[in-house]
Amino acid sequence: MVRSKWNKNSFLNTIYQTNEEVNSVVGPKSFLENRKESRTQLKTVKITNVRAIDLRFPTSRGMLGSDAVNKDPDYSAAYCILETDAGIEGHGLTFTIGRGTELCVSALEYLSRAVCGRSLSSITDDFASFARQLSEDSQFRWLGPEKGVIHIAAAALINSVWDLYARAEQKPVWKLLAEMEPEQIIRAVNFRYITDALTPDEALELLKRSSFGKEERLTLLEHEGYPAYTTSVGWYGFSDDRVRELCHEAIADGWTHFKLPWWLEEPTNPDDILGHARIRREIPGMRIATGECCSNRIMFKQFLQAQALDVCQIDSCRLAGVNENLAVILLAAKFGVPVCPHAGGVGLCEYVQHLSIFDFLCVSASLENRVIEYVDHLHEHFLDPVCIVKGHYVLPRRPGYSIEICPETLNKFAYPHGEVWTEKQ
Amino acid sequence: MVRSKWNKNSFLNTIYQTNEEVNSVVGPKSFLENRKESRTQLKTVKITNVRAIDLRFPTSRGMLGSDAVNKDPDYSAAYCILETDAGIEGHGLTFTIGRGTELCVSALEYLSRAVCGRSLSSITDDFASFARQLSEDSQFRWLGPEKGVIHIAAAALINSVWDLYARAEQKPVWKLLAEMEPEQIIRAVNFRYITDALTPDEALELLKRSSFGKEERLTLLEHEGYPAYTTSVGWYGFSDDRVRELCHEAIADGWTHFKLPWWLEEPTNPDDILGHARIRREIPGMRIATGECCSNRIMFKQFLQAQALDVCQIDSCRLAGVNENLAVILLAAKFGVPVCPHAGGVGLCEYVQHLSIFDFLCVSASLENRVIEYVDHLHEHFLDPVCIVKGHYVLPRRPGYSIEICPETLNKFAYPHGEVWTEKQ
Repeated sequence: MVRSKWNKNSFLNTIYQTNEEVNSVVGPKSFLENRKESRTQLKTVKITNVRAIDLRFPTSRGMLGSDAVNKDPDYSAAYCILETDAGIEGHGLTFTIGRGTELCVSALEYLSRAVCGRSLSSITDDFASFARQLSEDSQFRWLGPEKGVIHIAAAALINSVWDLYARAEQKPVWKLLAEMEPEQIIRAVNFRYITDALTPDEALELLKRSSFGKEERLTLLEHEGYPAYTTSVGWYGFSDDRVRELCHEAIADGWTHFKLPWWLEEPTNPDDILGHARIRREIPGMRIATGECCSNRIMFKQFLQAQALDVCQIDSCRLAGVNENLAVILLAAKFGVPVCPHAGGVGLCEYVQHLSIFDFLCVSASLENRVIEYVDHLHEHFLDPVCIVKGHYVLPRRPGYSIEICPETLNKFAYPHGEVWTEKQ
Repeated sequence: MVRSKWNKNSFLNTIYQTNEEVNSVVGPKSFLENRKESRTQLKTVKITNVRAIDLRFPTSRGMLGSDAVNKDPDYSAAYCILETDAGIEGHGLTFTIGRGTELCVSALEYLSRAVCGRSLSSITDDFASFARQLSEDSQFRWLGPEKGVIHIAAAALINSVWDLYARAEQKPVWKLLAEMEPEQIIRAVNFRYITDALTPDEALELLKRSSFGKEERLTLLEHEGYPAYTTSVGWYGFSDDRVRELCHEAIADGWTHFKLPWWLEEPTNPDDILGHARIRREIPGMRIATGECCSNRIMFKQFLQAQALDVCQIDSCRLAGVNENLAVILLAAKFGVPVCPHAGGVGLCEYVQHLSIFDFLCVSASLENRVIEYVDHLHEHFLDPVCIVKGHYVLPRRPGYSIEICPETLNKFAYPHGEVWTEKQ
């Protein structure tokens, strides 16, 4: 039984008892067959306007999300809506933890000029060039390059384009990716500055090799879901009693992995590649995990080259969206390092399930030592929230990137004028 | 003879012919003796208000500053003025190249809350803690940490505090630093995440060792100035003929170092420590320089540990102000690597002369293989512009960090409402 608060309120208002039940409710065929819209032609989809919203949840009031570094996060997002002339929208967000979200919103507003007035196909036909257009703006890049505010703002925009792309194709993002030809995946990756570790040819070869058995792996995921671990039991600000109680509840729900054990996460500064490598060398047998604050593919490349990590924790918003995550997923596979995405916050679980499913179907072809982080809050705000059964992510079926937030939430939690921020505490 | 445009207009409206002349004009005693104000007590200086200004110079119109990466920079700054109740101000800026400067201004406005209402001594007595207060804000840090928009904005604020500090002490910043006890320098450095390369004890030992001969080195600098190289002869957008002509002029002016030769600068992505190390290893004898886009002390530490550079190009604004530059100067000395600061842009020459002079007087104690970058534009906007004589920086004498910009410039070049941005092109 899943005891997720959000489940009680979400559109999927069902307590799943078994995997079979899940398939009967959100089985791929039944869901897609129910959709009325016909597949949209990408060329005819034109992006007419972009809206950027500063969205903040006052999670610090309950110590949710607190850890050794992040004492009092207010889970937040710079949220992006692509409006089109084709009756569909693209939604995307980048995750932040409160103050400074307005900077990401401003950066997002600037970057969105790169999509206004463009057809969707003009972006997706040469997706890596689009990602480079954002990261290599001749003046804006000084403020990174490819890191910090401007980079995580780019993630919101890029992810919103993928959401739009997947809706136009009437597929969830994982399926859109999994059904692309390997050559299409390669064309979506910016290989600049990583070819010393992975060339496009090597990546293509890897993707082609991993395509064997894809159907069987898909069947497995449809039956079992993708394994997860739960972080919700052990936030830093919780008392021991509370942690104990939450662990018992989680075991009863079928969870087998709880965040506290199994690896040492970000044991020093997230920029310190050589420091991580040294810690890993000097504590033999200790698995080192890092990545939620790793800025870009060039940093991840070096973590892998320096044998500095055992667990690659990609972040769907710290990296510049799906495209740069593809680069790191391919790099990790080349180096034989499992990808266990960072999630939680707001929207990260919804995002990373797509990335891990694609990773298993088309790149790593393995579940060994792989689990997706799961955190049990804020999902009630999403139209297509994640679905967890017995400690596994159930495959999302709705077209898009699962990231659209309910309109009433966009109003209520808008900062600083939304109801939740103006009402008296 | 110095053929600097700015010299013609600046308050030091003199063409210096010899080093002796320079000393007779801006000798340390004569200048200081002329000042009317008495030394201000730091405890009595309270910061009452902070003003942040978006300042942009349309340098791209003349291809000034163009290089292989930065095609069309509009040299710009997020400019910071600390107002006090003691009749003095602190000025600081962080350098940018145009679009996005508004993000730095917003970040600066947020960070400035950390100084409003505080006495100067409450900051300077525990300067490293102040720097950590800015970089470790529990929510804001997510947007870095210690990199990108929020970090370079912190530089403007921290540098303005040093300017105020030096004015209160009636010394130029280099002299303020050079006359501090080694223990005071150590207390200004945030050693977090660098002690595996340099401990506070080692740094203290290094500073004490280097104090021998400080007076003689000061005398040398007063007579000769600090050696410089000029970048103004060879911007990317210049024709060969223009470069040739400018080189001839520079030689006639006494320059001996021109930017094009002597090292290979930033040969790959600025985050790619291992990439730089490999290039250095595989091209024996080629000196590798990098740093103007190196985010923080943790990255510099690794460049040094990995033997990835021969020339350490600290940036006075990319790093979080004087304090983090002190950390990197000490690290570089420990590894025996010369510091040749990145300069140019707007205000960087004014800044880095102080850092290099301190480096020579108190840390490296050497001029071998050391030159400060010099770029010959925008100096006319400063109240205390750099002074170059025969390819050497003349020691600045005015109290402060040499960074105050004329009030009329602050009006005229303010973006987007200043005259230069509203007038028709």
